[in-house]
Amino acid sequence: MAQVDLVVGDLDGNRAMVRDRVRRAAEAGAQLVVFPEMTLTGYPPEDLVLRESFRQASCAALTGLATELAAAGHGDVAVVVGYLDADGGPRNAAAFVQDGRVVARYFKHHLPNYGVFDEGRYFKAGRELSVVNLGGVDIGLTICEDVWQDGGPFAAAAVAEVGLLVNINGSPYERNKDDVRLELLGRRAREARSAVVYVNQCGGQDELVFDGDSLVVAADGTLLARAPQFVEGLYLLELDLPASTGCTAERAGELPVRRYQAPLPPRAPAGPLAEPLGIAERLPDEAEVWGALVTGTRDYAVKNGFASVVLGMSGGIDSAVVAAIAADAIGGANVYGVALPSDYSSEHSLADAVQLAANLGAPLQTVPIAPMVSAFVESLKLTGLAEENVQARVRGTTLMGLSNQHGHLVLATGNKSELSVGYSTIYGDAVGGFAPIKDVGKTLVWQLARWRNAEAARRGEVPPIPENSISKPPSAELRPGQLDSDSLPDYEVLDKLLALYIDTDAGFDDLLAAGFDEALVTRVSRMTDAAEWKRRQYPPGPKISLKAFGRDRRLPITNRWREHG
Amino acid sequence: MAQVDLVVGDLDGNRAMVRDRVRRAAEAGAQLVVFPEMTLTGYPPEDLVLRESFRQASCAALTGLATELAAAGHGDVAVVVGYLDADGGPRNAAAFVQDGRVVARYFKHHLPNYGVFDEGRYFKAGRELSVVNLGGVDIGLTICEDVWQDGGPFAAAAVAEVGLLVNINGSPYERNKDDVRLELLGRRAREARSAVVYVNQCGGQDELVFDGDSLVVAADGTLLARAPQFVEGLYLLELDLPASTGCTAERAGELPVRRYQAPLPPRAPAGPLAEPLGIAERLPDEAEVWGALVTGTRDYAVKNGFASVVLGMSGGIDSAVVAAIAADAIGGANVYGVALPSDYSSEHSLADAVQLAANLGAPLQTVPIAPMVSAFVESLKLTGLAEENVQARVRGTTLMGLSNQHGHLVLATGNKSELSVGYSTIYGDAVGGFAPIKDVGKTLVWQLARWRNAEAARRGEVPPIPENSISKPPSAELRPGQLDSDSLPDYEVLDKLLALYIDTDAGFDDLLAAGFDEALVTRVSRMTDAAEWKRRQYPPGPKISLKAFGRDRRLPITNRWREHG
Repeated sequence: MAQVDLVVGDLDGNRAMVRDRVRRAAEAGAQLVVFPEMTLTGYPPEDLVLRESFRQASCAALTGLATELAAAGHGDVAVVVGYLDADGGPRNAAAFVQDGRVVARYFKHHLPNYGVFDEGRYFKAGRELSVVNLGGVDIGLTICEDVWQDGGPFAAAAVAEVGLLVNINGSPYERNKDDVRLELLGRRAREARSAVVYVNQCGGQDELVFDGDSLVVAADGTLLARAPQFVEGLYLLELDLPASTGCTAERAGELPVRRYQAPLPPRAPAGPLAEPLGIAERLPDEAEVWGALVTGTRDYAVKNGFASVVLGMSGGIDSAVVAAIAADAIGGANVYGVALPSDYSSEHSLADAVQLAANLGAPLQTVPIAPMVSAFVESLKLTGLAEENVQARVRGTTLMGLSNQHGHLVLATGNKSELSVGYSTIYGDAVGGFAPIKDVGKTLVWQLARWRNAEAARRGEVPPIPENSISKPPSAELRPGQLDSDSLPDYEVLDKLLALYIDTDAGFDDLLAAGFDEALVTRVSRMTDAAEWKRRQYPPGPKISLKAFGRDRRLPITNRWREHG
Repeated sequence: MAQVDLVVGDLDGNRAMVRDRVRRAAEAGAQLVVFPEMTLTGYPPEDLVLRESFRQASCAALTGLATELAAAGHGDVAVVVGYLDADGGPRNAAAFVQDGRVVARYFKHHLPNYGVFDEGRYFKAGRELSVVNLGGVDIGLTICEDVWQDGGPFAAAAVAEVGLLVNINGSPYERNKDDVRLELLGRRAREARSAVVYVNQCGGQDELVFDGDSLVVAADGTLLARAPQFVEGLYLLELDLPASTGCTAERAGELPVRRYQAPLPPRAPAGPLAEPLGIAERLPDEAEVWGALVTGTRDYAVKNGFASVVLGMSGGIDSAVVAAIAADAIGGANVYGVALPSDYSSEHSLADAVQLAANLGAPLQTVPIAPMVSAFVESLKLTGLAEENVQARVRGTTLMGLSNQHGHLVLATGNKSELSVGYSTIYGDAVGGFAPIKDVGKTLVWQLARWRNAEAARRGEVPPIPENSISKPPSAELRPGQLDSDSLPDYEVLDKLLALYIDTDAGFDDLLAAGFDEALVTRVSRMTDAAEWKRRQYPPGPKISLKAFGRDRRLPITNRWREHG
């Protein structure tokens, strides 16, 4: 199982990666190597699929790869690789490659068109089950969503009497999804009466993080092997598979069955595997979320050519957690902190920022914002909220100036609670190329900070996040003595309400039934609706929840619908 | 034909509008009143469809409306109205209402899931043709995309022998689409052997502008009536329709036919119509585009509660055209101009801005940016591009400060050529709630300016746009003597290349075949690809082209695909 990281659009790079992994797998004795969904194009390629030049290049990359593998002496290894085909329309396709050629193809049957997925926009659905006989074992090919829906190739596989089902994936992380996956895989294996090898990619692509978590289950649903989350690798294991039953059914339920013969027998086993994959331990929730945020941040930076990041370090919890994520992603020395004190900053703010930078080994620069702020306030005669916002925007402009001067990626530090109710300044604290915690509610931010510090203590390292940043009451510090609690409900209550309103589309009656106060429901839902225009201009950040802001939640800005009794 | 403006989510407001228009139509003698697609919810409601509370409210609004119409004495008027149904899944639905009740329903058959449309995400497709007999005439109901695709209800209508097909629409404007529509309607009418009444909404919704252009064609495809573009109204006409053939076919091709009887005969004709609709004249291309931009800008402002706008008036062509659009949309007195001269601004810039404001009757304020810029440059030691960008960001922060202080909507003035190649400063000239010309290439901006001035001259009014803003070479004026032509190809060439690369997804070979220089293709395609992250944070603006930035074009930010030979 090649649980690998892909780069969207990088046909050459992804193809070179496949060659390298096949070589390493062959050296380790593998007979069959399975790569994730759309290996060659990266996933999701979005509207690149609509370009004929890209579709042609993907098809050419596949045939070129097959030739190269044989030329490198790996023609006897069977390889399942995902790519974009153009046969009768764009296809989300899997190829079975051996002996220098494409032996069989399979086109994805179920095309997800919900949540973050737009596959109905891009692909024509496949309407056949592809089964390849490799050394006497019948192997069925399937792709991602095929395993999540009833009917289609998994149901057909039982009738076609396959001995192994391969399922290749680009399945984005969200909290607790790994539990759902495992239960599902077991059920599908039993339905199909076949072992299932589920291979997922691992890495970040814009707002999506793929967590790997590749799995193998036996025909009776027993978990045989599980790769770790967020760790790239070649995971090897040996499976005893039943010989072909000789079934020649030409249809399986609604689907025609197309059978192929692999040209070569599987490579001779090289003896017992050095390190067969066992069952990776289930990560605690915080570790899993932290892994997703670090992976998403690292891959956005690296894949877009940034070696360093810059962010405002306010002394507060949000910027501290973002800095710690960035330090885990690309190293503390590459995390440039900027303290941006104003007349309203409290004494402890700068001290907490200094402590944070020291803990992370991050360079810290201090830029007092008073000269710039007073230039605006005097020129424009600003007061009240307009004056508060100017402070945030001077900070944003400062960070962007340093980014332009030094080439750092700017990280925005807003959390999901703020972003929901619009408690942020557009073009101020909202500036950035990436926003690591935009899908993390404030209460989870605190929880992650405590977990990360405890984890450091467990490993005998310095806890990165200053205790004071965790324990002090949150404040935007845009006016004297300001506290978040002046403007917002208690975060414990707010986050519970938002999880229902946003993640589950709960309406007024549902929220009342869940025990929330009527006035609070009205206030929070209106604040959330009114902030849509700001969210539309917010930087991307990693999805970790059931419903993240972005492609996952598409609401109009101009929208007079209000939840009410 | 009720060619009306809708507000998404405003079930109460849209319903009140329907009541009012039915009353007025009844007074004018109408027997049948047809409203656009999803009249009650507004279109497109996007993810509101996923809320059960919203679906229920839409169904309740429909039955409430039927009751109200009868109570108001209009029970004898037949009304076709669009709404969101929840029968067996969310449905894009049309209801035939008469006598205080919902007589018949139809669920949209073809669900568009391309371009700006995501209907596969939301709706379950209908699989029946609904035919209502009203006073002896068989009327088939269809919705929007049904007329654009082969097969489905239009093909079925011929077999079912209907006498009239009603097609209700939320069909967004794009250039030259009206010609395509007319040709299509004629062809479908001939196929269906039935007259077709095509009713489209009129108004702006975020990035979409609906242009009306409601049409009636006879069974032989002859155009009988055409409502003007961008003008709300009740358009009346008399049609002689064939009596029912008595066809009782229960299936028409692939579709079951469901037949209904209207409970009441049509109202007695009140005599000849006072003002029957004729055939509205086809607008020249510039007038049509201008109409779309004005409608989109006005509706975004008004529907989101803004009575005034603010924008930077640089003396250049882009801000002049945006100001003129805004003045046509909400009146020049509500367009607040801000001149933001720097040390690099040329003498004519301020003079041209003053002239523009005077032409429009717009208030103009001058805020020299030097004090703010030097505060940043000195604090941060900025040079080169970083210093140029600070100027743009000081302007952006100034406009946002004035917006916060006075409640104006900020308009961004960037054009599509700049936005394509990333020739703009994020959080600088890119700030705003709405961007009226984001889908207008620079050459079209000039063309619109000349057209608008000529139009003013024709009407005996002051041409709004200073001649000097049109004729001078474009410059961002961020360093001494800077011209756009220092950094960009000639706009005539650039816009032609971008139209192919963006609107038609042309690849490297296509662009070479179209006669563009290899180095230019490489340079422009790379600049365009690299600017995706900036576009993602750009404000919304009206779509006028085949492919606008936004929902219409979904490319990854992290993307290593490059067009090359």
